[in-house]
Amino acid sequence: MIKERPIPVLEVFGPTVQGEGMVIGRKTMFVRTAGCDYSCSWCDSAFTWDGSGKDDIRLLAASDVIAELETIGGAAFDHVTISGGNPALLPQLGGLIDGLHARGIQVALETQGSRWQPWFADIDDLTLSPKPPSSGMSTNWEVLDDIVRRLSEAGRRFCMKVVVFDDEDLAYAKLVHERYPGIPFYAQAGNDNLTETDPAIMLPYLVERYEWLIGRTMADETLRGIHVLPQLHTWVWGNKKGV
Amino acid sequence: MIKERPIPVLEVFGPTVQGEGMVIGRKTMFVRTAGCDYSCSWCDSAFTWDGSGKDDIRLLAASDVIAELETIGGAAFDHVTISGGNPALLPQLGGLIDGLHARGIQVALETQGSRWQPWFADIDDLTLSPKPPSSGMSTNWEVLDDIVRRLSEAGRRFCMKVVVFDDEDLAYAKLVHERYPGIPFYAQAGNDNLTETDPAIMLPYLVERYEWLIGRTMADETLRGIHVLPQLHTWVWGNKKGV
Repeated sequence: MIKERPIPVLEVFGPTVQGEGMVIGRKTMFVRTAGCDYSCSWCDSAFTWDGSGKDDIRLLAASDVIAELETIGGAAFDHVTISGGNPALLPQLGGLIDGLHARGIQVALETQGSRWQPWFADIDDLTLSPKPPSSGMSTNWEVLDDIVRRLSEAGRRFCMKVVVFDDEDLAYAKLVHERYPGIPFYAQAGNDNLTETDPAIMLPYLVERYEWLIGRTMADETLRGIHVLPQLHTWVWGNKKGV
Repeated sequence: MIKERPIPVLEVFGPTVQGEGMVIGRKTMFVRTAGCDYSCSWCDSAFTWDGSGKDDIRLLAASDVIAELETIGGAAFDHVTISGGNPALLPQLGGLIDGLHARGIQVALETQGSRWQPWFADIDDLTLSPKPPSSGMSTNWEVLDDIVRRLSEAGRRFCMKVVVFDDEDLAYAKLVHERYPGIPFYAQAGNDNLTETDPAIMLPYLVERYEWLIGRTMADETLRGIHVLPQLHTWVWGNKKGV
């Protein structure tokens, strides 16, 4: 019997609310995997790839991850979000997804869309979140096209999400929406203040960023079917980790 | 030819973001109808039923409503939310819904579930929002059961939403979720401060109310598949009307 490859896990926490995107508000548990092929300038989870979190990485079997989810979350959840880093680097996640489904638990996952995995077609709430110019990364459109094509063929519910910090990012968001017109599209106001800890400063600033994005998108005829959302968890918990 | 019955309209505005529930963040136009069979203690649109807005009511044909939506929203929208009051008091809304669909525009509607209309089955995003004890209203469960049964038979996407102000409301929310277990369920933190105009006071208060509701629901095993959301528009615009 071939030994299952373990999963590099950095955090397991919850239940909490999903703060972004297509299932915003959903009660969910989080599993955060280590490792990323990107290094976005404004990444809010840089410890997953910049080396600073390396001592916290645990190599766990899928069954261990599920056991830990059940220890922490008890019977209070039926939804798990796999986050990163880029979980799409890990072919071995298929076993975890199958194990969760076997327990009646739904699975959400977000990835930048730089790498395909066959288990994408099994994710209940899949978000492809290509990164805009402000990230410093560049999009491989051929790979992204291929992922969108495969998911569409599989008849799978998924959405596109672009984080927007400035007008250049917004132009990129429009490009993405025009390239994949049939796919539900989310624009998210970016948080470019990752160090502020005072909610009295943080909260009005984030609301102002969200209001800016609303102002830039509402009258735009190329963004008719758009959702515009904040990162709700940063409004509640600021830059705190593990909530 | 039978003359179409006009629609009592109080407000037409947008495009803006939907601030609540199953399509939170969605770019949408709003049509607010006059009249309600309820008079919730904390209603944020009491002008639709308490007489204070009666001089603003216009009796419009469906085609006039659509023309006004297009004048205000141009070609920048593909989604309209019909709100109230209780729009379910108006059998004549079917023509408006058909007219919007004919233009490729999706329609959302929220109602307390006190009255069935055949056009419920045509709504793209329908929210049934029975009112908890703090409203001072009482739920007719037979009517609500009947509406849920008809919508389920029609294979229509819809959800349940309960606004929660206190623990008694939360107990009611659980009752609703247990009664309709297969239906996507949203709990929404209530805004019991309808007069505050200072965002520096309003915003932290609303965040605190939302955090309270998260705290009361996350560990609860009877609320596994729940979404917990704020009224996002009140976080951005406070108690302002028409945004």
